[in-house]
Amino acid sequence: MYDLHGETVHFDTENNRLLLLDQTELPQKTVVLALQTREEMFEAIRKLRVRGAPAIGVAAAIGLAVLANQSVQTTVPAFITEVRENAAYLNSARPTAVNLPWALGEMEKVLNSGAKTVETLKAALTARALALHAADIEVCRKIGENGVPLLKNCRAVLTHCNAGRLATVKYGTALAPIYTAKAQGQEIAVYADETRPLLQGARLTAYELYEADIDVTVICDSAASYVLGSGKVQAVLVGCDRVAANGDTANKIGTSGVAVLAHYYGVPFYVCAPFSTVDFSCASGADIPIELREETEIGELWFRQKMLPDGVRALNPAFDITKADLITAFITEKGVIAPKDLAQYR
Amino acid sequence: MYDLHGETVHFDTENNRLLLLDQTELPQKTVVLALQTREEMFEAIRKLRVRGAPAIGVAAAIGLAVLANQSVQTTVPAFITEVRENAAYLNSARPTAVNLPWALGEMEKVLNSGAKTVETLKAALTARALALHAADIEVCRKIGENGVPLLKNCRAVLTHCNAGRLATVKYGTALAPIYTAKAQGQEIAVYADETRPLLQGARLTAYELYEADIDVTVICDSAASYVLGSGKVQAVLVGCDRVAANGDTANKIGTSGVAVLAHYYGVPFYVCAPFSTVDFSCASGADIPIELREETEIGELWFRQKMLPDGVRALNPAFDITKADLITAFITEKGVIAPKDLAQYR
Repeated sequence: MYDLHGETVHFDTENNRLLLLDQTELPQKTVVLALQTREEMFEAIRKLRVRGAPAIGVAAAIGLAVLANQSVQTTVPAFITEVRENAAYLNSARPTAVNLPWALGEMEKVLNSGAKTVETLKAALTARALALHAADIEVCRKIGENGVPLLKNCRAVLTHCNAGRLATVKYGTALAPIYTAKAQGQEIAVYADETRPLLQGARLTAYELYEADIDVTVICDSAASYVLGSGKVQAVLVGCDRVAANGDTANKIGTSGVAVLAHYYGVPFYVCAPFSTVDFSCASGADIPIELREETEIGELWFRQKMLPDGVRALNPAFDITKADLITAFITEKGVIAPKDLAQYR
Repeated sequence: MYDLHGETVHFDTENNRLLLLDQTELPQKTVVLALQTREEMFEAIRKLRVRGAPAIGVAAAIGLAVLANQSVQTTVPAFITEVRENAAYLNSARPTAVNLPWALGEMEKVLNSGAKTVETLKAALTARALALHAADIEVCRKIGENGVPLLKNCRAVLTHCNAGRLATVKYGTALAPIYTAKAQGQEIAVYADETRPLLQGARLTAYELYEADIDVTVICDSAASYVLGSGKVQAVLVGCDRVAANGDTANKIGTSGVAVLAHYYGVPFYVCAPFSTVDFSCASGADIPIELREETEIGELWFRQKMLPDGVRALNPAFDITKADLITAFITEKGVIAPKDLAQYR
């Protein structure tokens, strides 16, 4: 087994490989992948072997560096063209999470640095990928610290999908404050929406919290109203894939519904994210592309027997938009920010 | 195969048997059960082989008549005691739907009619069960008629769980207006929440609508916010298991969430039900018992592989309460009734 060093995504620089925990195999099997071709990397992102907005961004950056290091181009312009082609290809794997183009954009800055040799560029791309990897760990640690004071009187929180360590390099976004609270001696229980169709809550959030000895209870997505309405949780924590300039937020399908419910029942609703998830080029949620995925994810994928009658259509949006007025605050590494104040931290 | 005569629940009086379409086998297999023992009847209700509040009530009434006809008691008091024991036993199979105690209460009225012989009572119980069966068909037909005018400008509706023909003897409650509209030449498409954990939407609603040549699209429960928010549907139609005097309504877990979302997005939310579903002995939703079912329904039942990590808890309420102020109107056989006006129709 390849050594992930306790991380979800790792850059094996010695062997020039992208290492990933294959999240489609969890919780039954712990499989670590070592990727070296761009087709493998694309497939791993597309098929959610690596998922979670921050983890996707870091994985793509490392992947791009791995591919760059393999390049046989001898001139800087030809090398840059090849790297950009690879970046565009990896960027097309999934549309909604801005972390993917953001991390690749950070790599692009290296290409524009005026380096004179291919070898210099290769070294600089590797260094930038490692820096993005390290920054993700640090950003998530700060999100945890910034979130804890908001949870002072929380006995339990509700979360949707997986925005834990498996969605980042190490500490998670939505679950980071839970881990930090535990390290400080405060036990906060977690209700985890199972998160159909791909069950990231049941498979991943439950898995990582249970491993960390945190009290976790899985509910069907439709039971969120019951849990919020019966006072079982005092806050909602979710991650996100892209935040528009006005605070509208794209995250896993169902998040907007949880936000409406939290608003109705008077429970605070926090979005936890690296500040890089804010995309000021999107004025509102209407500008964020929503990925429509295969219908078979609903009707077949997790079942040995087909679960929809033959011929019945399914509609499978992978994300939805939560309107800014339903979000109590964003918990970022820069602090706790109200939706209307995002631009002040730009 | 036993002949159900196009119904979900049927009284085979010739052979004194309760006939049921086994809904746990749908959509893969069409299995009809012929039940004659009280243990089989209890198990069929408990395990959701027959489900849907109206269908459960009729099935229990027929079952009670079948058991009564088998009685070897020779005195009226002993016979009545035995029938009441059987009624109490069947009534304990599931707690939330009021149709079960209501239908058994209608049978109890026969016992109190002052009949002088066991044979007279047996004949009267059989006649009452047949009358309840016939009344369910007629009530659902009227619900369809009363609902159609509300759907004049609807291209599509959203529904949760299954409140179609499979949930009643014949026409359904929430889907009755859809069938009636189709018969009148109006095509209304249906978005069906898949309805975890037992997938009544994906398995049953999709099955019966597709068979009836009605355009049906299945969504994960968490996509209801996306569907309501993007204007794909112009109304929500659901059934229910019990309505309190103030209009608070118990129905399949997740219904209250759909109601909050419909309210937020300004989409009318209609509850379709026989008026007998109103339980004036419950002042509000707080008085309605909510069934908590096995955790394995979430973690295992529909998967060959276990879907939750070992040791992880699940919370599995089968129903929730929708507050009256979220309900646009009740569509009943007595007409379309605002929550505050329920008592006027008592």
